[in-house]
Amino acid sequence: MSDNFILNFTPTGMIPTKEMTSFVPISISEIIEDVLCANDIGITMVHLHARNPITNAPAYNKELYAEIIEGIRKYAPELVICVSLSGRDFNKLEQRSDPLFLEGLLKPDMGSLTLSSLNFNKVASINSPDMINDLANLMIEKGIVPELEVFDTGMINYSKYLIKKGMIQPPFYFNLLLGNIACAQANLLHAGMMINELPENSLWSLAGIGADQLKMNSISIAIGGGVRVGLEDNIWFDKSRTKLATNTDLLKRIHIIAQANEREVMKSKEFRLEMNLEIGRGKYGRAAIEK
Amino acid sequence: MSDNFILNFTPTGMIPTKEMTSFVPISISEIIEDVLCANDIGITMVHLHARNPITNAPAYNKELYAEIIEGIRKYAPELVICVSLSGRDFNKLEQRSDPLFLEGLLKPDMGSLTLSSLNFNKVASINSPDMINDLANLMIEKGIVPELEVFDTGMINYSKYLIKKGMIQPPFYFNLLLGNIACAQANLLHAGMMINELPENSLWSLAGIGADQLKMNSISIAIGGGVRVGLEDNIWFDKSRTKLATNTDLLKRIHIIAQANEREVMKSKEFRLEMNLEIGRGKYGRAAIEK
Repeated sequence: MSDNFILNFTPTGMIPTKEMTSFVPISISEIIEDVLCANDIGITMVHLHARNPITNAPAYNKELYAEIIEGIRKYAPELVICVSLSGRDFNKLEQRSDPLFLEGLLKPDMGSLTLSSLNFNKVASINSPDMINDLANLMIEKGIVPELEVFDTGMINYSKYLIKKGMIQPPFYFNLLLGNIACAQANLLHAGMMINELPENSLWSLAGIGADQLKMNSISIAIGGGVRVGLEDNIWFDKSRTKLATNTDLLKRIHIIAQANEREVMKSKEFRLEMNLEIGRGKYGRAAIEK
Repeated sequence: MSDNFILNFTPTGMIPTKEMTSFVPISISEIIEDVLCANDIGITMVHLHARNPITNAPAYNKELYAEIIEGIRKYAPELVICVSLSGRDFNKLEQRSDPLFLEGLLKPDMGSLTLSSLNFNKVASINSPDMINDLANLMIEKGIVPELEVFDTGMINYSKYLIKKGMIQPPFYFNLLLGNIACAQANLLHAGMMINELPENSLWSLAGIGADQLKMNSISIAIGGGVRVGLEDNIWFDKSRTKLATNTDLLKRIHIIAQANEREVMKSKEFRLEMNLEIGRGKYGRAAIEK
């Protein structure tokens, strides 16, 4: 395996609003534009959240994801695309799984799978064992690879249970998201312990919530991990919170830190090989586009 | 502070049934009998769960807790009594908080407060930030001390947030419950890290789920902590699961291990002093009983 690092770009998320920062991409065209710009700067994958075009609230609908994916793949056919299957705002299987039913050119490469219930600072995020089971099985059926979302030590243990049951299959990709108020904290002890406990055949990125984003991204680049970065997790550029970040600002800073650390962003193509992802979803993907 | 250790007795819980083990106390009289027997052997406190007398299912009703508490206090007036406020099977505030409204002789000393949402092996246990807030405030109002239930590292961080907000007040009592499938595991690294991160002025007990109970209890006795033990967490006496345990078996083994480690069970009276709990709930409690 190369030393190149995964750069997982999270442009939008469920929390930031235009009132919080005008830089967050909300509309379909804004999201596509930020992703294509990021792709030019250099990223490995994108973690997408859709928003309702009228209310700007988080949305699960596959029709919205379809438009975003179509817009991205037109110009960045190799980019690995992960859709959010979060249940923070809607928690029925038919809602959360909706984007997994996209087909052909519009089929996502990956879908997020949070490995337990947890609390965010204001709300509970409920991912029951049955929901995890159903989403994992559906992803196997659809040939969509889970992006394993881990917020505390126990969720890594749960991944090992899913492995034993054959509900997730190697190689694995983990986001370790540190600094949430009721979960593991963004320090070396928690990060180190969690990284050490990952199952074999795991690729991983470190993410930090809010002010912890830069810290977690930097230590990950230093020690050989990947990076999850974008306005989804953090809207500020500086520690004193005087300057709102753009997605471009955040990505360019990661590239500067990476260059100084003699590390390069893993190309989507390499990540596809590592994760056994078909190029542009095989027969539906890049080849189909190029025809 | 003395070296005496807290022995927190958990006779019943929400999971064991008579079909699983005939030794689990389910009826009001069975629970009272097991607690009084435990009190004779030597315990510091009891963590109570009530069951519906018809269906044997977990129950929140204060009338059931009242009968159990009355039966215990009649013969063991000093014993510290903690009621479960679990939301595993019912998750409305008026259900979960019901036992906090007991008054006078029937008022519990403590109530359980789980510090985040989490998954058990089959179900999610939802403790939203609002629910935690409401239960904590109600306990302050009622003068009932929270038993802080922690299943993973992040819940300790959340306790620090509650301390900052003044929603819980020192001294604190924590149960660290290790070995749940989606939470911290029952090993020295996880236990050590969590113990190290407890806030100042904390008393604590280690608990292990299932086969991990003995292991966690033993290391806690060895290193200076308390013990949570009983059929709630584990129904087997031996590692090979050939012999079903009784609550008496489990408690006597703790006493043997404690004696060999030159440690003594903290008396309820000492725990009341440490935790600023009134003796038998002050004017309603022991004094009232003795009148």
